[in-house]
Amino acid sequence: MRFDAKIDNASGTSPVVLVCEHASHLFPPEFGILGLSDDAQVAHVAWDIGALALARALSVHLDAVLVHAPVSRLIYDLNRPPHHAGAMPEQSEIYDIPGNHGLDAPARASRVEAVYLPFHNDLRAVLAHRLAAGRATVLVSVHSFTPVYFGQKRDLEFGVIHDGADDFARGILEHVEGLRAALNEPYSAADGVTHLLRLHALPYDLPHAMLEIRNDLIADDAGVAAMAARLAPALAAAAAGVL
Amino acid sequence: MRFDAKIDNASGTSPVVLVCEHASHLFPPEFGILGLSDDAQVAHVAWDIGALALARALSVHLDAVLVHAPVSRLIYDLNRPPHHAGAMPEQSEIYDIPGNHGLDAPARASRVEAVYLPFHNDLRAVLAHRLAAGRATVLVSVHSFTPVYFGQKRDLEFGVIHDGADDFARGILEHVEGLRAALNEPYSAADGVTHLLRLHALPYDLPHAMLEIRNDLIADDAGVAAMAARLAPALAAAAAGVL
Repeated sequence: MRFDAKIDNASGTSPVVLVCEHASHLFPPEFGILGLSDDAQVAHVAWDIGALALARALSVHLDAVLVHAPVSRLIYDLNRPPHHAGAMPEQSEIYDIPGNHGLDAPARASRVEAVYLPFHNDLRAVLAHRLAAGRATVLVSVHSFTPVYFGQKRDLEFGVIHDGADDFARGILEHVEGLRAALNEPYSAADGVTHLLRLHALPYDLPHAMLEIRNDLIADDAGVAAMAARLAPALAAAAAGVL
Repeated sequence: MRFDAKIDNASGTSPVVLVCEHASHLFPPEFGILGLSDDAQVAHVAWDIGALALARALSVHLDAVLVHAPVSRLIYDLNRPPHHAGAMPEQSEIYDIPGNHGLDAPARASRVEAVYLPFHNDLRAVLAHRLAAGRATVLVSVHSFTPVYFGQKRDLEFGVIHDGADDFARGILEHVEGLRAALNEPYSAADGVTHLLRLHALPYDLPHAMLEIRNDLIADDAGVAAMAARLAPALAAAAAGVL
């Protein structure tokens, strides 16, 4: 059993490589629905609501390749290492995940083998081939966050997170207008949310950023289109500033 | 064409995972001898002389898994990223590498596909499965350096290099006696020699060290046996100190 990364626009010409680790709310039969209610299967704990739609719109605007997850992050969270409690979480925010309770070693190994390794191998192949060909490359991962977290309302609309060099992340913020935005909010590298960047950006000294968009702003097609139109030129300008 | 990593003692019980990126002086027919003389094919630029023999002896002493390179580093240097001039070098120290001159994009891509990606995928699988199973893990790569470099004699006998947390590296030095030893010599992370550590140790917060042994000390079986007997307990003690 093996769930390869999904790759859109593989021959995209942009220096931007888009990644969406929390793109999917698919629970394939091999793993089942983990005991979740219908509502929980499409809640923000199962995927980043709106993130794939936004990433796809950015891919079109920029003509950028997009690498995205094939299954729900509750099966395996691709932005967490295998020994992290959040990789196959028993609890996520206020949701209990019954099918992740007390996973034994073979069950954990099969998810690593089926989901974690194929995705990161596929993404590394994309990046390594670009670098071998001398192509300028920046890594941008697209996430969304819930407007209410543990009962607290969040006013932030857009966050940009980095791990290591911050010039590209700051450049994005400088080129975005009209959003309540902040660097390293609502999380930062210190919260352990930058596994993707540490696996794929830092070893290659790639300019990088993890985008966090409040999901009520990208909950429908109009919201996605407006956000993509706002962010795409900022990403392009920030990339041009560091390459 | 695909050259998988070689793996010895896959079920080793030690927390130490041994890696030898420069283990091999094999030039398989698919790539040829790169125009090198017989002498150059077995010189230190083609492989780290004695490093695999030492790594194998350490693997036996510690009962540790060992992941090692299947082909010469002049075909692809597994400790360099694909855009680095040293990944497929045209020149290495005083040696010209004719078969690496003016490699075109398809030639570079085929080496990335055949050598770089399989090795690092295989090593990541080893590490990810250990971490998913909750096994304590430290990463140790085994290298050797030439006693004469660009005509200069080197007095150093043993170096330990880290990138990030240095407690494990310092622990090794504290437990080794009778060698002219130093931290971050004859190279350091600032010289761009820690790609392996940045790919595989740092994203998982693994204690790590890159060992550098002067190759005249491990040029024969007796030297290898003596060095392994000296280093194995130091590695075990240093690992125990950080786990």
